[in-house]
Amino acid sequence: MKNSRYTIATLGSHSALQILKGAHDEGFKTLLITTPSRKEFYQRFPFIDQVLVIESFSRFPEAEKKLKNKNIIIIPHGSFVAYFGVEGNKKMTLPYFGNKKVLDFEADRKKQGSWLRSSGIKVPKEFATIGEAEFPVIVKSYGAAGGAGYFLSSSKKDFKSKIKNFDGEKYLIQQYLVGVPLYIHYFYSPLTNKIEIMSMDRRYETNADAIGRIPSRYQRDVRIEPSFVVVGNSPLVLRESLLPEAFRMGEQVVAESKKKIDNRGLFGPFCLETIITPGQEIYTIEISARIVAGTNLFIEGSPYSSLFYKEPMSTGRRIAREIKLGIENHKLELMLD
Amino acid sequence: MKNSRYTIATLGSHSALQILKGAHDEGFKTLLITTPSRKEFYQRFPFIDQVLVIESFSRFPEAEKKLKNKNIIIIPHGSFVAYFGVEGNKKMTLPYFGNKKVLDFEADRKKQGSWLRSSGIKVPKEFATIGEAEFPVIVKSYGAAGGAGYFLSSSKKDFKSKIKNFDGEKYLIQQYLVGVPLYIHYFYSPLTNKIEIMSMDRRYETNADAIGRIPSRYQRDVRIEPSFVVVGNSPLVLRESLLPEAFRMGEQVVAESKKKIDNRGLFGPFCLETIITPGQEIYTIEISARIVAGTNLFIEGSPYSSLFYKEPMSTGRRIAREIKLGIENHKLELMLD
Amino acid sequence: MKNSRYTIATLGSHSALQILKGAHDEGFKTLLITTPSRKEFYQRFPFIDQVLVIESFSRFPEAEKKLKNKNIIIIPHGSFVAYFGVEGNKKMTLPYFGNKKVLDFEADRKKQGSWLRSSGIKVPKEFATIGEAEFPVIVKSYGAAGGAGYFLSSSKKDFKSKIKNFDGEKYLIQQYLVGVPLYIHYFYSPLTNKIEIMSMDRRYETNADAIGRIPSRYQRDVRIEPSFVVVGNSPLVLRESLLPEAFRMGEQVVAESKKKIDNRGLFGPFCLETIITPGQEIYTIEISARIVAGTNLFIEGSPYSSLFYKEPMSTGRRIAREIKLGIENHKLELMLD
Repeated sequence: MKNSRYTIATLGSHSALQILKGAHDEGFKTLLITTPSRKEFYQRFPFIDQVLVIESFSRFPEAEKKLKNKNIIIIPHGSFVAYFGVEGNKKMTLPYFGNKKVLDFEADRKKQGSWLRSSGIKVPKEFATIGEAEFPVIVKSYGAAGGAGYFLSSSKKDFKSKIKNFDGEKYLIQQYLVGVPLYIHYFYSPLTNKIEIMSMDRRYETNADAIGRIPSRYQRDVRIEPSFVVVGNSPLVLRESLLPEAFRMGEQVVAESKKKIDNRGLFGPFCLETIITPGQEIYTIEISARIVAGTNLFIEGSPYSSLFYKEPMSTGRRIAREIKLGIENHKLELMLD
Repeated sequence: MKNSRYTIATLGSHSALQILKGAHDEGFKTLLITTPSRKEFYQRFPFIDQVLVIESFSRFPEAEKKLKNKNIIIIPHGSFVAYFGVEGNKKMTLPYFGNKKVLDFEADRKKQGSWLRSSGIKVPKEFATIGEAEFPVIVKSYGAAGGAGYFLSSSKKDFKSKIKNFDGEKYLIQQYLVGVPLYIHYFYSPLTNKIEIMSMDRRYETNADAIGRIPSRYQRDVRIEPSFVVVGNSPLVLRESLLPEAFRMGEQVVAESKKKIDNRGLFGPFCLETIITPGQEIYTIEISARIVAGTNLFIEGSPYSSLFYKEPMSTGRRIAREIKLGIENHKLELMLD
Repeated sequence: MKNSRYTIATLGSHSALQILKGAHDEGFKTLLITTPSRKEFYQRFPFIDQVLVIESFSRFPEAEKKLKNKNIIIIPHGSFVAYFGVEGNKKMTLPYFGNKKVLDFEADRKKQGSWLRSSGIKVPKEFATIGEAEFPVIVKSYGAAGGAGYFLSSSKKDFKSKIKNFDGEKYLIQQYLVGVPLYIHYFYSPLTNKIEIMSMDRRYETNADAIGRIPSRYQRDVRIEPSFVVVGNSPLVLRESLLPEAFRMGEQVVAESKKKIDNRGLFGPFCLETIITPGQEIYTIEISARIVAGTNLFIEGSPYSSLFYKEPMSTGRRIAREIKLGIENHKLELMLD
């Protein structure tokens, strides 16, 4: 196979196991780049051909030089921006799966909000100041990662006391939608121009997902403040009558990205983080423009991926499949940056 | 294969993807009947051989005439009664998988309650009037579909204020059992006279499944009324020591249906919707006498179906398998209406 | 195959279906031992070659005599101690998978606490008397099984009223950690000396998992006391950045068992029952030193087992695989007691 001349590489975190297992299953060589503390961990897995240890992620640019001209393709995931920042990602010189211009729109809450709104999908209201807010609201710091840096607020007074913890950080005040969360994992192929839904999940958040198990009178006594730190995921399927809208939402966001970002727009894996209200309206709260950790539930495929594929098709494997098809069809440049 | 001369058909909603994928995997041709707005959606899937568009579901009888004598078998699902009513289902002339007489017992809460009670399985208490109720109660409108049209009530006064929203609709007052929900997906084969448990799930309800994530003092401020609109499903397994009872419950309900409904009784897929109390008693709240949407989690099989089948056996595929065996054994008439 | 001369046997409860299906898939004969009421249930399953009925579990020693010298290997699960006590397990004469000395450390809360603490993993604080407690606390009776015999307490006064229900039974007062539960299913191989993570779950507890769906003001009216009776399980995956710690925790517990218990220590399947706090700290609440019921979700494998195995590898099948490898390598004595 032609693709066996290529190596798929990623950083040791987030969804690296899924990405490299998928790459291995599609016939690629695999490379995991990590700091010393995780070396031993990633060496446990038989589908990782090589573990490259760098002293710290700030040393990545040096490591990158040695990896040049070796047919290595980097697959970014949710920790790339945390480790390198948007600018660090843009400066990478190895072939990178995805459109780096999308990173600006993902990282900047204003740009992201504008992109989602102009896509025509449903989004929650935003309030420029606490004075105009309709309560309850959810307040998100601009740099919030993995669910930390969020709080709920039920009044102006309550807001004023809680916002002090943000230490002057920028924030967003959003309508708090009462409904259930659903994370929809998409893949958009630049080869076929088609949207696929790969899987769906719900985040497992500490301590928000524990509060419900404590009766209200205990909560009175102990004054538990909810936090939304994501430590895992659990699987879900969506009511079939809402699936057509879920597909359309993915298509609208991709179509708008081609106007707003550049003509390549968003491609590869992405996730719409939604709230479904009792009126069965699907509101999009955020977009993640890369593979999300919820796909780790579906390393052996999902009910949705089985509608399109005979093999157990994870999102990680889907990325590798796209690269393989890109190689076979001499269209690899369509998907690399 | 003999069955390749047959086409399995259903309506575009609920569990249509699972049903048609299962039919395809068992060697049948597949037909999806839908209204214009969902045409594009169902055409995405490679296992659907034909999408037939009708202007509205009220035009189904005309469409049906053209489909006559073409070896088409209709598989009903949870949207059939919503689209056509019980009478509309009975008037269908194409071969229909299942016993239409069961529809009367499923649709009428009194008949259904009587069937379940006389089966000898545990059911919650019902109160003829609010005067005799033991609180808390759950109040269900007779025509409630998909979880809407339910409310909880903790007192007579509370009940009187909420019942006004029902606008004179008929309702049922039931003991509210404090325990966890479990939906058990059965299949009863008229060929082998055996019960199988295919899978289990829990419904994902908006906003009931979000309330627990909001601390009680926020709930005080915002006065959220719980609603039980089903928008998805999540997987569960049952403690093994309760499985023998789960199998027996399915058998009891089927046995009683042969006395109460007609000698064919209930067959094919059905679901008991249960609440399990802290005393580990399994109460049945409702029966769905056809495939339920929770089976959509298990398009690639479940821990339970893997106990009986080597292939990934969804409930949709199990229906197709039964029809295939019916054809091979010249016993198709056992399962069609 | 050599292993086809052996029969794998277990008692009819807990995870027996998974254990015997796994044994069957690895080429063993299978035997299920049960009391009369469950005979019919276990005979439903095609992978169970023989069902042996004994009048009551107290008659097991007699049955055991007849099974001698027939190459039968017993796989214990979570009901063995409930049925026979620790002493009854130790008196078994048939070859028994696992180290029976571990049972003393699992059954005695003080010994277990000491083992976990000296392993160096994080554990909740324990309070010798209610006087020194920091509230809220969780109070567990020493003999608690399956989640019954637990209560939460928010004050000394509250504790005094609730402890009366324990009727003088011994109990443990533990810091109540506010965070989300995660049950991690491990397998430690005495052949390779390696730890594997097979799968993860969350318990489904009645009525604790229903309380969150009831708004706080209803809870005020009906005064629901939470109970933690386990009736099922639901699947989870853990954030990848926490996985290295999860593996290390398993290794630390095993390493410590070799010092504290005997030189064989703990091997085969076990489970760490953890709480993950908003600070992403993983606290271990309890250890189960045998297969746990949460593995029943993964009869067809899990996202984690698929990282190590091409076949759908349940924990039950993993046990059978270890025995098979033990037979082939003439090292069966390493794993039997």
